[in-house]
Amino acid sequence: MYSFKNDYSEGAHPRIINALAASNLEQTEGYGEDTYSQRAKALLKEKIGREDIDIHFFVGGTQTNLTAISAFLRPHEAAIAATTGHIFTHETGAIEATGHKVIAMEVPDGKLGIEDIQKALEMHTDEHMVKPKLVYISNSTEVGSIYKKAELWALSQFCRANNLLLFLDGARLGSALCSMENDITLSDLGELTDAFYIGGTKNGALMGEALVIGKASLKEDFRFHIKQKGALLAKGRVLGIQFEELFKDDLYFELAEHANKVADILQQGIEKAGYSFLAYSSTNQVFPIFPNDLIDKLQEKYDFHIWEKVDESTKAIRLVASWATKKEAACEFVSDLCSMTENSSF
Amino acid sequence: MYSFKNDYSEGAHPRIINALAASNLEQTEGYGEDTYSQRAKALLKEKIGREDIDIHFFVGGTQTNLTAISAFLRPHEAAIAATTGHIFTHETGAIEATGHKVIAMEVPDGKLGIEDIQKALEMHTDEHMVKPKLVYISNSTEVGSIYKKAELWALSQFCRANNLLLFLDGARLGSALCSMENDITLSDLGELTDAFYIGGTKNGALMGEALVIGKASLKEDFRFHIKQKGALLAKGRVLGIQFEELFKDDLYFELAEHANKVADILQQGIEKAGYSFLAYSSTNQVFPIFPNDLIDKLQEKYDFHIWEKVDESTKAIRLVASWATKKEAACEFVSDLCSMTENSSF
Amino acid sequence: MYSFKNDYSEGAHPRIINALAASNLEQTEGYGEDTYSQRAKALLKEKIGREDIDIHFFVGGTQTNLTAISAFLRPHEAAIAATTGHIFTHETGAIEATGHKVIAMEVPDGKLGIEDIQKALEMHTDEHMVKPKLVYISNSTEVGSIYKKAELWALSQFCRANNLLLFLDGARLGSALCSMENDITLSDLGELTDAFYIGGTKNGALMGEALVIGKASLKEDFRFHIKQKGALLAKGRVLGIQFEELFKDDLYFELAEHANKVADILQQGIEKAGYSFLAYSSTNQVFPIFPNDLIDKLQEKYDFHIWEKVDESTKAIRLVASWATKKEAACEFVSDLCSMTENSSF
Amino acid sequence: MYSFKNDYSEGAHPRIINALAASNLEQTEGYGEDTYSQRAKALLKEKIGREDIDIHFFVGGTQTNLTAISAFLRPHEAAIAATTGHIFTHETGAIEATGHKVIAMEVPDGKLGIEDIQKALEMHTDEHMVKPKLVYISNSTEVGSIYKKAELWALSQFCRANNLLLFLDGARLGSALCSMENDITLSDLGELTDAFYIGGTKNGALMGEALVIGKASLKEDFRFHIKQKGALLAKGRVLGIQFEELFKDDLYFELAEHANKVADILQQGIEKAGYSFLAYSSTNQVFPIFPNDLIDKLQEKYDFHIWEKVDESTKAIRLVASWATKKEAACEFVSDLCSMTENSSF
Repeated sequence: MYSFKNDYSEGAHPRIINALAASNLEQTEGYGEDTYSQRAKALLKEKIGREDIDIHFFVGGTQTNLTAISAFLRPHEAAIAATTGHIFTHETGAIEATGHKVIAMEVPDGKLGIEDIQKALEMHTDEHMVKPKLVYISNSTEVGSIYKKAELWALSQFCRANNLLLFLDGARLGSALCSMENDITLSDLGELTDAFYIGGTKNGALMGEALVIGKASLKEDFRFHIKQKGALLAKGRVLGIQFEELFKDDLYFELAEHANKVADILQQGIEKAGYSFLAYSSTNQVFPIFPNDLIDKLQEKYDFHIWEKVDESTKAIRLVASWATKKEAACEFVSDLCSMTENSSF
Repeated sequence: MYSFKNDYSEGAHPRIINALAASNLEQTEGYGEDTYSQRAKALLKEKIGREDIDIHFFVGGTQTNLTAISAFLRPHEAAIAATTGHIFTHETGAIEATGHKVIAMEVPDGKLGIEDIQKALEMHTDEHMVKPKLVYISNSTEVGSIYKKAELWALSQFCRANNLLLFLDGARLGSALCSMENDITLSDLGELTDAFYIGGTKNGALMGEALVIGKASLKEDFRFHIKQKGALLAKGRVLGIQFEELFKDDLYFELAEHANKVADILQQGIEKAGYSFLAYSSTNQVFPIFPNDLIDKLQEKYDFHIWEKVDESTKAIRLVASWATKKEAACEFVSDLCSMTENSSF
Repeated sequence: MYSFKNDYSEGAHPRIINALAASNLEQTEGYGEDTYSQRAKALLKEKIGREDIDIHFFVGGTQTNLTAISAFLRPHEAAIAATTGHIFTHETGAIEATGHKVIAMEVPDGKLGIEDIQKALEMHTDEHMVKPKLVYISNSTEVGSIYKKAELWALSQFCRANNLLLFLDGARLGSALCSMENDITLSDLGELTDAFYIGGTKNGALMGEALVIGKASLKEDFRFHIKQKGALLAKGRVLGIQFEELFKDDLYFELAEHANKVADILQQGIEKAGYSFLAYSSTNQVFPIFPNDLIDKLQEKYDFHIWEKVDESTKAIRLVASWATKKEAACEFVSDLCSMTENSSF
Repeated sequence: MYSFKNDYSEGAHPRIINALAASNLEQTEGYGEDTYSQRAKALLKEKIGREDIDIHFFVGGTQTNLTAISAFLRPHEAAIAATTGHIFTHETGAIEATGHKVIAMEVPDGKLGIEDIQKALEMHTDEHMVKPKLVYISNSTEVGSIYKKAELWALSQFCRANNLLLFLDGARLGSALCSMENDITLSDLGELTDAFYIGGTKNGALMGEALVIGKASLKEDFRFHIKQKGALLAKGRVLGIQFEELFKDDLYFELAEHANKVADILQQGIEKAGYSFLAYSSTNQVFPIFPNDLIDKLQEKYDFHIWEKVDESTKAIRLVASWATKKEAACEFVSDLCSMTENSSF
C-alpha cells in the first residue's frame, strides 16, 4: 500500500535527521534561546530581506494559528477566512476556543478576494456584531490554489486602507512558492503581510513552522503568548536546527519543487487517462474526479483521501505528493490508472 | 562552561535518535494513529498494569497540563495546587487562559497534603466562589521532593471521598520513581490518580509526555481537546517512536537513575564541603545555599539557576542533573567547590 | 416622531412599576433567593406543568444565551443555529467569547429544520472539527416566523435521537405563543426542549428573562455559572417581582396579544396599500418592502429599522409593535402610508 | 427579623422609583443611547470635572469588573489584587473565566500598598509567568477600610511609573467618599485612576454601576465589550434615569452619609457595650467580635453574616447599614446587645 494521503506520512529529510544527530549531545540554552535557533532566525531574515521582523518557531500549524491570532486580536475582534480556510472547519474550533469568531466567506477556489472581505465588513456595522480585524489566507490554499503577487498586493493595500491585519498561513508555503505559476517571493511576503508562517512539517521537517511577524505593534510580548498556549518547546533547538538545515542552502525549495513535480506527474497522467479535476492545481495536491468503482480498485493499492462526492457515480479524491513521495510511485499510479481505464489515450 | 541549569540542555538519548533515523522513511498514518504510537501505548498499559486506560502523547508539559485540566473541568470549577506548583506561577497563566482559577496553597516542601486541600475546600462554600474540583500535584515536585506511597494513597482516598479529581504532573516522574526513597510504582499511579503524565522531555526524549487517563468519564472525546489546543502532532509517530524506545527495555528508568546518582554526587560533595541546602533532595535537583561571592566564582565555569535569596550574604542555587549529565562534571564541580572553600573537610 | 423601531422603547407595564413600588421597602434575601422570586418560579412551574424543572432569572437575552450555552457545552462542543439566529451575528461573538463555535446554516425563513441540522452533523465528522452538540432556535424567530408544534416535536425527536441538546431562545416567546397560527403551549416547551427562556424585556418587563432548564443533567451547579458571568443580580427580587406580576393572571399573554394585533393592523394596512413583504408575519414584527423615496418620507414622522436592500429602488424595513405600541399609532401609520401612495386601494 | 446582612436588602430609594414611573411610557432609544443616559453621563462628567472621560452603565459589580478588566488586558496580562479583593474569591472566578490570572497579595487591612505591588512585580520576571498589568483596589474595601488621598496618589504615581493600570472598584464608593476620614473627591478619582466605577446598587439604586474610563487608550470600542459580555441593557434608560436621579442634587452622597451614620451608631454602641472589632471602620460595614452564644441570641432577632471564626469561643460578624437601614433599628440592636451583656457600661 503506497500512501498519497498527505504530506506528513514520512519522517524528516535525512539531512535533518543528521543535523539533529550531529548536535545531539551539545548543551544549549532552552526555550529557543539557543544558537541554532538564533542562526536559523538570522538566515530567514536574510532570505526575507528584512532585519526588523520577529521570528518564532512552533511545532505545528494549528498551534501557530491559534497563538498568533489570539495574540493579535482584542476580545471583540474577529478573523475573516474562506469557508475552506483551515481555521474555519479543520482546527476543532481552536480560534473560537481563544474567544474569537471566524467570519467565513464562501469562495469558489479557496482564495479570498477584496470583494469577499468588503462584504464581510459590510455585514458588521456596529457594536452588536464582532469587529472584523484580521484577514486569514492560506498559500497554497487548502484546495491547492495559489495567490499571485498582484492579488496579494491588492489584499495588502485593501487591508492597510481598512485597518485590517493580513495573516498568511503557510503550512504549504514551500509548494506555493515553487509552483510554476508563482511570482511571489519570501521578501514579498515580508512586505505585504503583517505576519505569515513558513511551514516545515509538510516540507521536510520532523515538525516545525516559522512564524514571521512584520508589523511592529504585533511583536510586543509575543513569547508570553507562546508560553501561555503551551507552545514554548523546552528543547527549542530542535526547531532551530531543522530550519537552519532547510534554509542554509535552499533545501526547503528543492524539496517543495520535488513535491510539485511528482504531483504534476500525477495530474498530467490522470488528465491523459481521460479524467477531469475539481480544479487545476500547480502545487502538491491534485483533486481528480473518478468513478466510484475505480476508486474502490485504486484503494486496494493506494491510500488517499476521498475529498467529496461529485455526483451519484463519481467522487473527487485528493492525492498529495511530498518531498518524500517517490517519482516512481507516481508513475506507477498513472500506469495502474491506465490499465484500469478502458479506452485510455495512453 | 558546563551547564547544570536544567534537564533539557542536551538533545535525546542516542538510542532515540537512532530509532527516529531507522523508521524515518517509512510511511505511517498521521496524528498519532500510527503503529509506533499504538505499540508504545500498549507497552505503557502493560507497565501500568491496566488495559482500561487511555494514553495520549504530547510535546510538552504546559501543553499537557492545559489540555488535560481544561478538558476535565467545567467552567466554574478550579484546580487546587501548591504555590510552588508549575501551573500556578510558571506557565504564564495557561490554566487561567482556559478559564479556570488555580487555588494555591502555601506548603513547606512543594507537597500538598490532605489538610491543605481541606482548607481550600473550606474556603469555597457557595456559588459566589469557584468550585474546587481537581487536585494538581507534581512528582517529583518543583523543589525536588517526592510523595511516598502512603501519602499518595491518602490523597487518593480523600479526593475520591470529596468528589475531587487527582491529577499528577510527572514532568520529572522518572527521577521520582528512581529516587532511593521512592516506594511508588507506575501501577500505583494508575490506580491512585485519575490522570497523570510520564515526562519524556526531561528524561531522554527529544520531547514528549505521555498522559494516562484512568477515570472513565474523563476519556470521552479527549482527542477533540488535543486538536483544539493545537497539540495534535501531524507526525505523531515522532512521540510514539520515542516512548517505545524509552520503555521497551526500561531505558527510561536507567536514565533517571543516572540523573539521580549524579545529583547525589553533587549533594554529598557539597555537604562534605560544609554547605547546607534549602531542603534535602533524593531526586535530580539539588538546592545548595552558597555565599554570594562563591556563586560568582562558580558562575565563571558553571551555568545554573539562582533559585532564591536566603539572606544578605547567601543564596540558594539549583543544580540539575539529567540522563546526559556526566558523572565527571559533577565530580569536577565538587572538586572546584572544595578548592574555592577554605577549611573544607575534604 | 413615533417609534416602531423595537419592542423595548418604553419602560415597563404600569402594573410592574406598581409592583416594584409596593414591595420597595421590604427587606428580602439577595441574589434571587427572596420570596418574590420563589413565588414567581412556582407560578411558572405551574404554567409549564412540571415540578422537576429549574428556573433562573436573567436581565437580558444575550446574557441568558451566553450563560446557558457555555454552561451546557464542553469546550470542544458547538451550537448549531440559523444564520439569522441572534447568537450568530447579533451578540458580538458572545458565544465564541466563551470558547464555542456557532455553526450557522442558511435557512429561508429563520427556522432550522431537521435537514439543516443533519447537514451540519454530516459536515463534522471527527476530532479535527468541533462536535455539534446544541441546537439553538428562536421562537418567534428574528424574522418574525414561528415554529408549529409538529415542527418542534420533530426537532425534539431528532435531537434526542442524535444526542443533541435543544435550546429555545424565547426573547419574543410571548408574541410567538399569542400568534393566531400558534399551536404550542408553555407545557409543550417544557416537554420538547432541554432548556428555553421566556422573554420579559420585550413583553412588558423593565428587564428580565426566565430560563427554564428541563434536562436534569444541565441543572447542576447552574448558579455558579450565573455568578461567573456577572449575571447574578444582587437585588434579584426585581426580576422575581416582575415575573410574578406578568404571570399571576396572564398579563404576559395579554400584552403579547396586543402587540400582535397592532402589528397585524400594520401588516394588513400595508398590504391593502399595495405593498409586499419580505415574508408574511403572524407575530409582532412586520417586514414591508417600500420604495426608497417612500421610506425617506416615512422617516420624517416614524422611526424604524431599515432591514435590507431588496433592489436598487426598494428596501425592506422592520416595524415592531410592543405591549406599549398604541393601536392609534398603527392606524395613523397606515393612513399616512395611503396618502403617500398614489392609487392606493383605500 | 431585621436584616443587617447587606446593603441590597431593600429596593430603591423612593425618588428613583418615582423617576422610573414618571418616564415610563416615554419612547427612547435602546442600549443606553437615550437622553436620560446622556444626561446622567453629562452630570457625572461635571461632578468628576473632566469632559474627556467615557462613562458606561452596568447592572452589577461583577459584570462591571469582568467587562472592564477583560477589555483592558491582553491575554497574557494579569490583575494584582488583595486576597480580600472581591474579584479574587467572591466572583466565582469571573476574571479567570475571561482568561486572566488574579495575583493576590496578603494585606492586613484590605488595602494594597506600593510595597505589595512591588512584591508582585518582583515575583513575575519573564515570559514563563503572567505579566502583571492592572492593579485592582476597592474603596471602601471589602473589610470596610478606605484609602486616603495620599495613599491613592502614591499608588497612582507608582502605577504610572511602572506602566500599570489602576482600576478602582467602587461598589461601595458612596460610603467611602462620605466617611468622616475621607479626603478623596470624585475629581481625584478621575485624575488618579485609569478607570473606576461608582456603585449604585449598594447605595440607593435598584441596580446600576457607572464605569468611568479616564485613560484614552482604554476607551476604544468599549461598547463592543459590553455587548459581548451580555451587559448591554436593551432598556438602558433604566440605568440612566437612576444615575440622573442620584446625582442631580447629591442624593447619592446623602444616602451614603445616612448609611455611615447608622453604622457608626452600631459601632459606637457595640464598643460601649464592651466588645472589640476585627478592625475599626469609618464606613457602612462594622465587624464586631462576639461570643458564640451571644451570636446565637442575636440571630433570633437579627439577620447578619458570620464573617470569620476568631477563636474557639468567639466569632466576628458583619453588620451592614444602607441608605434604607433605619436609625431606630440600629439603636434597638445596641439596646438589645446591652441587655444581653452582663456588666455592660451602659
